[in-house]
Amino acid sequence: MTTSPGVPEPSAELLQLAVKVRRAAMALGQSNDDQRRKALLAMATSLLSCSEQIVTANRQDLERARAEGLAPALLARLKLDEAKLVSAIEGVRQLAQLPDPLGQLQLHRELDQGLVLERITVPLGVLGVIFEARPDAVIQIASLAIRSGNGAILKGGSEANCTNEAIMEALKKGLSATEVDFNALALLTTRKESIALLRLDGLVDLIIPRGSNELVRFIQDNTRIPVLGHADGICHLYVDASVDLEQALQIAIDSKTQYPAACNAIETLLIHQSIAPSFLAIAIPAFRQAGVRLVGDSASRALGVVEVASEEDWATEYLDLILSVRVVPDMDAALDHIRSYGSRHTEAIVSNDKKTAEYFLRSVDSAGVYHNCSTRFADGFRYGFGAEVGISTQTLPPRGPVGLEGLVTYRYRLRGEGHIVADYANGKSIFSHRDLPL
Amino acid sequence: MTTSPGVPEPSAELLQLAVKVRRAAMALGQSNDDQRRKALLAMATSLLSCSEQIVTANRQDLERARAEGLAPALLARLKLDEAKLVSAIEGVRQLAQLPDPLGQLQLHRELDQGLVLERITVPLGVLGVIFEARPDAVIQIASLAIRSGNGAILKGGSEANCTNEAIMEALKKGLSATEVDFNALALLTTRKESIALLRLDGLVDLIIPRGSNELVRFIQDNTRIPVLGHADGICHLYVDASVDLEQALQIAIDSKTQYPAACNAIETLLIHQSIAPSFLAIAIPAFRQAGVRLVGDSASRALGVVEVASEEDWATEYLDLILSVRVVPDMDAALDHIRSYGSRHTEAIVSNDKKTAEYFLRSVDSAGVYHNCSTRFADGFRYGFGAEVGISTQTLPPRGPVGLEGLVTYRYRLRGEGHIVADYANGKSIFSHRDLPL
Repeated sequence: MTTSPGVPEPSAELLQLAVKVRRAAMALGQSNDDQRRKALLAMATSLLSCSEQIVTANRQDLERARAEGLAPALLARLKLDEAKLVSAIEGVRQLAQLPDPLGQLQLHRELDQGLVLERITVPLGVLGVIFEARPDAVIQIASLAIRSGNGAILKGGSEANCTNEAIMEALKKGLSATEVDFNALALLTTRKESIALLRLDGLVDLIIPRGSNELVRFIQDNTRIPVLGHADGICHLYVDASVDLEQALQIAIDSKTQYPAACNAIETLLIHQSIAPSFLAIAIPAFRQAGVRLVGDSASRALGVVEVASEEDWATEYLDLILSVRVVPDMDAALDHIRSYGSRHTEAIVSNDKKTAEYFLRSVDSAGVYHNCSTRFADGFRYGFGAEVGISTQTLPPRGPVGLEGLVTYRYRLRGEGHIVADYANGKSIFSHRDLPL
Repeated sequence: MTTSPGVPEPSAELLQLAVKVRRAAMALGQSNDDQRRKALLAMATSLLSCSEQIVTANRQDLERARAEGLAPALLARLKLDEAKLVSAIEGVRQLAQLPDPLGQLQLHRELDQGLVLERITVPLGVLGVIFEARPDAVIQIASLAIRSGNGAILKGGSEANCTNEAIMEALKKGLSATEVDFNALALLTTRKESIALLRLDGLVDLIIPRGSNELVRFIQDNTRIPVLGHADGICHLYVDASVDLEQALQIAIDSKTQYPAACNAIETLLIHQSIAPSFLAIAIPAFRQAGVRLVGDSASRALGVVEVASEEDWATEYLDLILSVRVVPDMDAALDHIRSYGSRHTEAIVSNDKKTAEYFLRSVDSAGVYHNCSTRFADGFRYGFGAEVGISTQTLPPRGPVGLEGLVTYRYRLRGEGHIVADYANGKSIFSHRDLPL
């Protein structure tokens, strides 16, 4: 961070709030599994009993957003109806049942007699989460934070302000009946505050930005706090020469249309030239029926795709019912395309040839690489993590869907009986390095 | 990174070199355990047969550095005599014997019948390592990189240029007889190149800076590549009210003097007021005899410490035979001091009271927290990691001494039989989330 004029100093109010969250988080970090489990169940119960207020608040947000002409894909994210809320609450309950991510002994080693090393999981501290106008994210993030012993300062897209405030009120109400201090959670509602959050080094331990590439870049460039690199999902499906056409089509349709606003939906379809004529013959009408607009390279246009894909299309995350299509001479060309335009999120191959599939799985360096299934499975809930705080496209862990495990760190503890290093340097003692039971 | 005038664009030569390293690293990433193991043994053998040239080159570096008036602590780091070299070579051999960090199955889960998720460790890619004038680091870093399947571009302190070049030549000579491409390793020798390294996003996956806080900050502020946050080691030893005086003294002496130039040496001694008179009565002469200059607060000066510790002293990493001393009213004051001035590297308590010790272990949020042993144990080799690429003082993993395990990441692989998400959304299928054997 070189002091950028765009990043204001935190206000006294923001600092006070951050200190309050941090204090509550320090206490939370010392809480036990049962206390945090109960806190989550109380949050879930409170959300349920406040569901009418939450859904009503969401309707207000939706009305305003529609009046302001928000794009359909964004409206879909913003919408929180009864069904989506119930499913989010169910997610909180499931999270309560997952094993405690804290206090896990990851390493237990005798270095020498009486000198024992442990590595044990501990919370990160306070998370700063800046996310899109998608109110179920507040529920997911808050419950992941509490379950993992972290405080959280949340800033959602302003289009969802009413919904987010209603949700946060319900969550705090739920926590107030538990041993977890409700001050461990805080919601920011103005953009100025969310930017000043970037200056809270020492009070916030991890920034989790969810949203456009530009947002993530801006944040990475303007903070010294570590950033969880969730960026665009430019996901690819490669249809190999040897496929079950019907299976390939189903996977393609699901990967694109099951929830096009999600980052794990595909944006580009790569098709081996030998299968392209027969695959596109069934895919073009199927996509048309599903309301998907296809844009293609010249080879795919020769096979019936009408619109032209520009260079920009290959690098675009549509988050909408648009799909770019390219016919490739072989898998290496597909791998090259993915390397050039992909965002290392999730890539899939459909193929009946196991060897080809394994080569693809080995060669693609994305957080998720799939064979014969939809890219839409790239999700913490579907992976069995209970929920996710985001999907990281960076190389370093945590990578892919980040659940509880990605929100903890560890600490080494060494207990001795007067051991000093000089004894090992002069040969008086030697290390045993004997692993002990975990 | 906002384009800083201090960071030049990489030259064509540097780009070519980085591409070469990257290509070699991609091939290395596909190599098996045995190939990488043999590569390390060949590196060790070659280092041994070139040891005369290496030690001679080091003598040249030392002479020049002495003439230029390099501080004694830095000269100690720069020196690479026969004994230090042999021990470094032994480290390479030990690393070869450690379990393969790649291809480890970390998660293996059936999401549904025929839909199986794996999480498997893979290399990061290419490491960019900028480090102090300490030539044994070249050996450690290069062997950690190759063992973990990563390429590495290294830039050591220019005082060690002759030694580093001799070492790199030996390493490449060793690799040239193996299946690992010696281009996976490269040494930069000018400062301009090392700065331009920060611009190699997409070619370098992790920057590991070792050196002053200023260097680490500068790098963090001027690159989009993730940075492993190795910063100052301002380590503390707290001598509790109830201690074995002789044990406490031995630990204090070892923590300060066993190798004062190391980041895990203590810089500050905190002493409970009730034990301070008797402890300082034996500690002051012992430190004097060990050549350690003590600077203290008023309470410790009243007990015999002569020189004054300024506010700045508490925040200084001396890396030398100087120790700041403070008498504290109780452990909470010690914890406060550590929170205010520590760098979250390694802190230790000497205490006969187990409860007090456990409270300290729980409350101090440093990468390492120790009881009744020297802080000098904070080291990858002593932890049994074979070696370390550095000690991370950041909160997120990898934290503490970073060995092989900290140099790999993972990838999710999902294999299905035509599975689509729509079936789970509409209730036709449900997830089993059944863990399979690892």
